[in-house]
Amino acid sequence: MDPFADRPRRGSLRSRLHRIIFGVGTPAGKAFDEALLVAILLSVTCVVLESVPEINAEYGMPLRIAEWCFTILFTIEYVLRLWTVAHARSYALSFLGIVDLLAILPTYLSAFFSGTQSLAVVRGIRLLRVFRVLKLARFVQEGSQLASALYASRQKITVFVSGVVCIAVVFGTVMYLIEGDESGFTSIPTSIYWAIVTLTTVGYGDVAPSTALGRMLSGVLMILGYSMIVVPTGIVSAEMARADPPPQRGRVCGACGAARHARDAKFCRVCGEVL
Amino acid sequence: MDPFADRPRRGSLRSRLHRIIFGVGTPAGKAFDEALLVAILLSVTCVVLESVPEINAEYGMPLRIAEWCFTILFTIEYVLRLWTVAHARSYALSFLGIVDLLAILPTYLSAFFSGTQSLAVVRGIRLLRVFRVLKLARFVQEGSQLASALYASRQKITVFVSGVVCIAVVFGTVMYLIEGDESGFTSIPTSIYWAIVTLTTVGYGDVAPSTALGRMLSGVLMILGYSMIVVPTGIVSAEMARADPPPQRGRVCGACGAARHARDAKFCRVCGEVL
Amino acid sequence: MDPFADRPRRGSLRSRLHRIIFGVGTPAGKAFDEALLVAILLSVTCVVLESVPEINAEYGMPLRIAEWCFTILFTIEYVLRLWTVAHARSYALSFLGIVDLLAILPTYLSAFFSGTQSLAVVRGIRLLRVFRVLKLARFVQEGSQLASALYASRQKITVFVSGVVCIAVVFGTVMYLIEGDESGFTSIPTSIYWAIVTLTTVGYGDVAPSTALGRMLSGVLMILGYSMIVVPTGIVSAEMARADPPPQRGRVCGACGAARHARDAKFCRVCGEVL
Amino acid sequence: MDPFADRPRRGSLRSRLHRIIFGVGTPAGKAFDEALLVAILLSVTCVVLESVPEINAEYGMPLRIAEWCFTILFTIEYVLRLWTVAHARSYALSFLGIVDLLAILPTYLSAFFSGTQSLAVVRGIRLLRVFRVLKLARFVQEGSQLASALYASRQKITVFVSGVVCIAVVFGTVMYLIEGDESGFTSIPTSIYWAIVTLTTVGYGDVAPSTALGRMLSGVLMILGYSMIVVPTGIVSAEMARADPPPQRGRVCGACGAARHARDAKFCRVCGEVL
Repeated sequence: MDPFADRPRRGSLRSRLHRIIFGVGTPAGKAFDEALLVAILLSVTCVVLESVPEINAEYGMPLRIAEWCFTILFTIEYVLRLWTVAHARSYALSFLGIVDLLAILPTYLSAFFSGTQSLAVVRGIRLLRVFRVLKLARFVQEGSQLASALYASRQKITVFVSGVVCIAVVFGTVMYLIEGDESGFTSIPTSIYWAIVTLTTVGYGDVAPSTALGRMLSGVLMILGYSMIVVPTGIVSAEMARADPPPQRGRVCGACGAARHARDAKFCRVCGEVL
Repeated sequence: MDPFADRPRRGSLRSRLHRIIFGVGTPAGKAFDEALLVAILLSVTCVVLESVPEINAEYGMPLRIAEWCFTILFTIEYVLRLWTVAHARSYALSFLGIVDLLAILPTYLSAFFSGTQSLAVVRGIRLLRVFRVLKLARFVQEGSQLASALYASRQKITVFVSGVVCIAVVFGTVMYLIEGDESGFTSIPTSIYWAIVTLTTVGYGDVAPSTALGRMLSGVLMILGYSMIVVPTGIVSAEMARADPPPQRGRVCGACGAARHARDAKFCRVCGEVL
Repeated sequence: MDPFADRPRRGSLRSRLHRIIFGVGTPAGKAFDEALLVAILLSVTCVVLESVPEINAEYGMPLRIAEWCFTILFTIEYVLRLWTVAHARSYALSFLGIVDLLAILPTYLSAFFSGTQSLAVVRGIRLLRVFRVLKLARFVQEGSQLASALYASRQKITVFVSGVVCIAVVFGTVMYLIEGDESGFTSIPTSIYWAIVTLTTVGYGDVAPSTALGRMLSGVLMILGYSMIVVPTGIVSAEMARADPPPQRGRVCGACGAARHARDAKFCRVCGEVL
Repeated sequence: MDPFADRPRRGSLRSRLHRIIFGVGTPAGKAFDEALLVAILLSVTCVVLESVPEINAEYGMPLRIAEWCFTILFTIEYVLRLWTVAHARSYALSFLGIVDLLAILPTYLSAFFSGTQSLAVVRGIRLLRVFRVLKLARFVQEGSQLASALYASRQKITVFVSGVVCIAVVFGTVMYLIEGDESGFTSIPTSIYWAIVTLTTVGYGDVAPSTALGRMLSGVLMILGYSMIVVPTGIVSAEMARADPPPQRGRVCGACGAARHARDAKFCRVCGEVL
């Protein structure tokens, strides 16, 4: 259900702003979305660059200024959304509402705490700003049949992921018994970490088997991980194929109701009626 | 076939327990399952944590106590299952029955052997407890069409895996000839290990080609491994697509309730009624 | 639309050359294409080999000579194309036209600049020649239903890639907070780089987590990356399955020749004839 | 076409042997196949183990003896095949015939050359024996619809692989310009090797970017490689889906010819006739 169901009185400033901020039909709405998109990307880039010592040393001040500009912009955006939306409360509690709030809070908090608190906390808070990327979620149209396919096969995917974890636990434990500490298998958690690294075909190589038996076993694990990916693929492919039926099957004969007529069909293939 | 076919006399304590332990319909049954799930996960976590030297040094005693609690719990569960199930023997010999037994045996054995046997054996036995994760298999409903798809294409998958191994053997041997010991290709088994690591796109990097020819050949192997995954994917996708017909074809006959009629069906395919 | 729509007067030398250069029907045309293919591959090989110090030291002169031969060949090809094509301008501005120009320019430029400019620039310009591989694009027939499937699902793929990047940004930042500099997470860009390396299951291992929490989190990221690939797979599979209808449904109408009639078709869907 | 079309006079020893060696219907034929399978696997294992210095030092003699036993066995098999088969020549020149010959030749050759030739040659010849694994090809039934699907999409796969190589060449060259020697990008071939390692998500880490720009670019390459795998997957999935039409579509109504009746169909869904 859409929390912005009943719109404010049209014609008023509030309704015009609503159309611009929430709507995409109008040119103004499009422009607003694009501006927002750019602002999000730029602000995240700033946060990221700020963490590079050299850049921070040289461009620290401009970055901090830009930071404040973005925060003020997003604050204005947040306030306008709160004002123009039909149900401010349900927006504020919606996923996007919380994300919009999280996008502006850290800067204020860091300014507030800077003196009083430990550096680690401030650093942590400041880096929360990177979650602004989640504001991009707004640009992904809901209910895409991709999401529906994933949702439809969520149970199977849960089973699959649990299976992956179980295999990692079992193989990790066995490898912990086989391999010694010198190979890096210092504890079962480490071995499970290695098993996941191997099963997902990431393969860092920071932990790697050295004994013959261990290598044989990890060979099995690798082939397992390599082949196992087909399982969710098969699931989701089937879901997708089910989610969108080929369009050329879409037309129905008015006379006999025979469906799945090809795009270029002029006549019903069952009763011969003109479509 | 279901080994618990004929139920014990209903109303009796035994039958009530049976409904709770094996059934999921009743609230009590659900609660039991959830409690079991939590117990399994916690007990495995204990086994895993116990292997971390620091944690074992500090929390060794509580972990050992928790261990015994879980063992006693699982023992009670096992006994109750044996008692309440219709055919105790067929349960005891079923996969889940053996897993349930394996979940409790190691602790008792380790307590028994601790003094007499070598540490390695005891350690090995104790770590068998991690196989408790297999108790989770109970929560995966049988006969999922995923399993059936895998089962239907088991032969093709066998051929595929054998193919992977053969390619690994051939490439491993050739690379053993091309590359010297300094690159880590010290023997054919090691080279085969490298080939599997490469073919499955894991790529640890502990063994890596250094000669021009060797790198060219491993490039071929990589592209092969990268592309080859499509083969089982295609197989299983096709199986899956076959396994579940799209629901939008799911018209149901009013007379006999037969479902999955084609769009252009005029008559029920089972009872011949007009749809 | 095809820029070479209206052909030059047939019979003339120009039209004959046009048929040879652009056409593939005639034996001469086939021969020309094959010669071109070989020339492209050889010339790129030269560029690649030239960069190997040992080879350049020994075979520098022959390579440079071969280089000039290929350049002259491609120049002749380019001039002939310009001359024989119907609309020289639209060809020159087409993708292939620009590629053909880029294939010959660098050699002339490098000869021109060699003395005057810095070595780096010349080196850069010379290496531009490797883009000759793009000339191969000519041999990929346009409008393959593979390309159309990709094109049809471009939006979903964009969303997917953005999703990958966003996940990498978020995980990278969090790991930057968790892991210290000693693990290699020296800045957020580096951490994002690590996150992409992990999410795409490449796993160099040059940056790898060392703390327990970091490894747990990267385990999540790995499983995410490992499973997430099914999403685009599902998308494109569905697109492909839609793109080409099974041939075994390919009944042809005797009257109008319309093909791809459904199995249960009684009448041609185009002309209404009884099949 | 099957080279063993016209069989030798039945009843004769030759024909009985032929049934045993080439046939699988009779118990003797099955037994022979199984024995052959075991012999192949064992002999390859011997070759592999012989390359391990420790094992060769200790069990060199028994391995060499086993080697000769296997060679004699395979020689007998080869001779019998030559004798019993209808067209000895066409078998000898067939893929399997050549493989069978290659399986026995190396041992004899190595025995012959051992004294006269250099060790490397002998070693190479001896290792040819590992190609015995190709004898397993006999057990893969021909014309599987998997092979046909691959064959049907061979062109697309060629285009795909060429695409992968072209991307590797272009990215490799660019990275060679960006990254210096200290990162391991010492020449374009090495850089192309790195690009393939990265694009196929193998990721050894022996060559890895160190500059910011290089890491950004390789991030692009990784995401490209990670997503690009969907292309062949889509192709082959579509091919597979096309290769095997769901069985429940297979039955045809005798009265009206309506096809694609479900397995449990008793009546035609179009005309209501009893199937």
